[in-house]
Amino acid sequence: MTVRNSVTPRAAGEVSNYDIETDVLVVGYGAAGASAAFEAAYAGAQVLVVDRAGGAGGASAMSGGEIYLGGGTPIQTACGYDDSPEAMAAFLKAALGAGADAAKIDEYSAGSVEHFHWLVDRGVPFKPTMWDAPTWVPPTDDGLMWLGENSWPFTELAAPAPRGHRPTANDFGGRLLMECLSTAAESAGAATLFDTYVSALIVADDGTVTGAVARRYGMELTIRARRGIVLTTGGFVDNDDMLAAHAPQLLGHTKVSAGTDDGSGIRMAQALGAAVRHMNAGQVGMSLIPGLAARGMVVNALGRRFVNEDTYPGRIGQHALYRQNMGGSWAGDDTAVWVIVDEHGFEDVPEPQRWGVQPTHVAETPAELESLTGLPAGALTAAIARYNEFAARGQDLDHHKSTRWLRPLTPPLAAIDVKAGVRPPSESGDRRGTGASVFTLGGLHTDLDGHVLTLDGKPIPGLFAAGRAANGLHGFGYISGTSLGDGTFFGRRAGTAAARRA
Amino acid sequence: MTVRNSVTPRAAGEVSNYDIETDVLVVGYGAAGASAAFEAAYAGAQVLVVDRAGGAGGASAMSGGEIYLGGGTPIQTACGYDDSPEAMAAFLKAALGAGADAAKIDEYSAGSVEHFHWLVDRGVPFKPTMWDAPTWVPPTDDGLMWLGENSWPFTELAAPAPRGHRPTANDFGGRLLMECLSTAAESAGAATLFDTYVSALIVADDGTVTGAVARRYGMELTIRARRGIVLTTGGFVDNDDMLAAHAPQLLGHTKVSAGTDDGSGIRMAQALGAAVRHMNAGQVGMSLIPGLAARGMVVNALGRRFVNEDTYPGRIGQHALYRQNMGGSWAGDDTAVWVIVDEHGFEDVPEPQRWGVQPTHVAETPAELESLTGLPAGALTAAIARYNEFAARGQDLDHHKSTRWLRPLTPPLAAIDVKAGVRPPSESGDRRGTGASVFTLGGLHTDLDGHVLTLDGKPIPGLFAAGRAANGLHGFGYISGTSLGDGTFFGRRAGTAAARRA
Repeated sequence: MTVRNSVTPRAAGEVSNYDIETDVLVVGYGAAGASAAFEAAYAGAQVLVVDRAGGAGGASAMSGGEIYLGGGTPIQTACGYDDSPEAMAAFLKAALGAGADAAKIDEYSAGSVEHFHWLVDRGVPFKPTMWDAPTWVPPTDDGLMWLGENSWPFTELAAPAPRGHRPTANDFGGRLLMECLSTAAESAGAATLFDTYVSALIVADDGTVTGAVARRYGMELTIRARRGIVLTTGGFVDNDDMLAAHAPQLLGHTKVSAGTDDGSGIRMAQALGAAVRHMNAGQVGMSLIPGLAARGMVVNALGRRFVNEDTYPGRIGQHALYRQNMGGSWAGDDTAVWVIVDEHGFEDVPEPQRWGVQPTHVAETPAELESLTGLPAGALTAAIARYNEFAARGQDLDHHKSTRWLRPLTPPLAAIDVKAGVRPPSESGDRRGTGASVFTLGGLHTDLDGHVLTLDGKPIPGLFAAGRAANGLHGFGYISGTSLGDGTFFGRRAGTAAARRA
Repeated sequence: MTVRNSVTPRAAGEVSNYDIETDVLVVGYGAAGASAAFEAAYAGAQVLVVDRAGGAGGASAMSGGEIYLGGGTPIQTACGYDDSPEAMAAFLKAALGAGADAAKIDEYSAGSVEHFHWLVDRGVPFKPTMWDAPTWVPPTDDGLMWLGENSWPFTELAAPAPRGHRPTANDFGGRLLMECLSTAAESAGAATLFDTYVSALIVADDGTVTGAVARRYGMELTIRARRGIVLTTGGFVDNDDMLAAHAPQLLGHTKVSAGTDDGSGIRMAQALGAAVRHMNAGQVGMSLIPGLAARGMVVNALGRRFVNEDTYPGRIGQHALYRQNMGGSWAGDDTAVWVIVDEHGFEDVPEPQRWGVQPTHVAETPAELESLTGLPAGALTAAIARYNEFAARGQDLDHHKSTRWLRPLTPPLAAIDVKAGVRPPSESGDRRGTGASVFTLGGLHTDLDGHVLTLDGKPIPGLFAAGRAANGLHGFGYISGTSLGDGTFFGRRAGTAAARRA
């Protein structure tokens, strides 16, 4: 057990002196924190943003920058897609899994076009062109992409429209997004303090959160927040004790974070009696090339398909990790996951989009591929025959892959082990791992204004949260862009609500 | 959202008068509460046990009464089985899933023989005879049974020994167990108060829990506990808000409880800043006859096997609900689960042990059975062919079912829909449901003495928990008898520790 900072709250009566005073304290300077800081400052409050790192960014800056937006944005319209808040909400309620927050999804969908304009006004550029194929990150600067809306079962539940909005950038867009948002926050008047780790909250006798205790270069700092504190400290993927207690399926995989997602904000608020939701849930980025997967089959260690390969790739990953036992968190074998593709499908994906992925094995027959991969004799042969039968009839009866991607697989065949990893074209070296990169979705229970709620469902006075410190929109499902999306959207709400507190 | 009682703690300074005073207050009178009450009274403390119901019992009294015991009990020895605490601990660490509490499992296994004798001394009878076949509840009064120890993958991880210990009873043994334990507690001097619902804790300025607020016939009662409070209030399967927030997979299924598992103890302690673990986890009792399943195949809606059918039946259920999407909590189709068995296998299970289960469909060929069940054309035919091939070679390469149960399936064949339900021979009427009966495993984080721990991992002074209000031994896996097992074992510890507090 790692020794961690105490999150036991400090009684306000025990704090004789405050090193710093502000109206609104924002803890954590990723996309949610920057959005909260901007709105709080814009509403006229004195704002201080602190981060344990040496600058703004957090996990947001390392991300692809996709933001889940819809309901009829100018980018959607320019690309020829109709959308409505209702269709967007219907998709999210299904895709974000059982237990998703329906009220937040409705609010988020209804406010999405406004939020798009707010982002544009903060300088975030979106190009009105469409990337129309399964991928993690398009190799272009196209501003719009599908995130599973056009895949089963969602096609049967909501009118499909692409809603993955991407800042125009040469590489991952998260850095650019953070530059725009932090510039906006600071231009609006928010002050910043870096290398500062907030470890506990200060609480008045009546339960109001009035400040925080922090550590900076080994010195303790006390910070008074006259109007409120917004926790935007991120999730807890960097805290293995918390993973073991809540989301053991995520242990041992590559952590998607800036190394600082230790759950501190979640724990500080829980120590005050805050409620949490869906602490078991996680996003699973699988080391596969979605374009290759869509053109072939994804199979488990029994040589069986388990999901439509043209769906949002994070859904393939969640199925693999939580349901197919990739990683071995359920008693039994840690399952392998293979992408099976033929030469035609492999070549159909341009080399730069393959991110260095090579076939692990190549064979002239399914039986030879079974032998090379160690998949059970007969299983892959049967799976390919069944898949090709579906392709011939133009209907995937088992997993409902779109006919667009359903084509018979003909030798030579390749098997790609997802545990062999992928790497950006710019990197070299071995990327072999568990096949998955993960972060957590569970967190504090908040209302539509970002108030952190108690076990009784009542706001804790003076305490707000947004981003992955909160559970946000999510059940146990995930879609790219909903983290930056709900973090910025409800971060703004939290900043405004904190600034307006008397 | 259901309106619930406030769990916000009451400040001791605001309580001017106590209606009742005692040394140790035990909240909830199931097996854990009775065990805690006995030990606290035995240690010399004045003890009061309160329950919201009209008498002792809770979910414990409705259970089969199995207690997971081993390490070389007299019953194991009499039945010819060797066992060791180490083998028991190795099995439990695998079977109770990733994130299981290794320290608690070691302690529980090392103390298991002593705990067996304690139960016998309290009057719980165990017959030294063995029931040697997969079942939920043996149709006999045999005192010992397997609970998956002799099934893959556990056979590869720990020396197998049967550890399901059953009180000698004509029917489910839970009622008898509760009679023994409540008689013991009350004979040792514990007082009882029924129809009393504890809704919040009373807390001193220094964080010590000093009492509780309760409601009885519409009147508020304040209870002072001079030494400590033991929360044995059960899990939260009866609280749909908590299920939606933490374990949405369990929503909508039959609830295994006395109707009072609303999570009140968990919430009361969380409101003080207590930590919880594995709130997503649940036991899944599937409506299948384990003896029929072991003699056949269990398949999902794609006609595929997904687990060795001779394993602990709750493991089949967890796989179906959490991994095969029975219940439909993952986006996509709510999967069907079918038991496929041939006439020989069906007749091989004596009629009384079939609990009224009849074939849903009977067919002369696999293809006909596919057509009757609506399973995908070819899938069941292929699955049966593969299974029969494994039977012929004497090795189940896919799911590792023991050769004891591996026999070719020959027509006529039957398919049994688990959603058609099962019913005890004594009952009549329609039992059709979701195919699953569930309860929760997540709960308060406690140490080996039952202290409830804060987010910082420190004991909350004066507060203890045991039974399903605590997470106990469990990760997200489950084995029958570990609830009554850890509830009674750590309930005793908690009662002793509370009584000894100065």
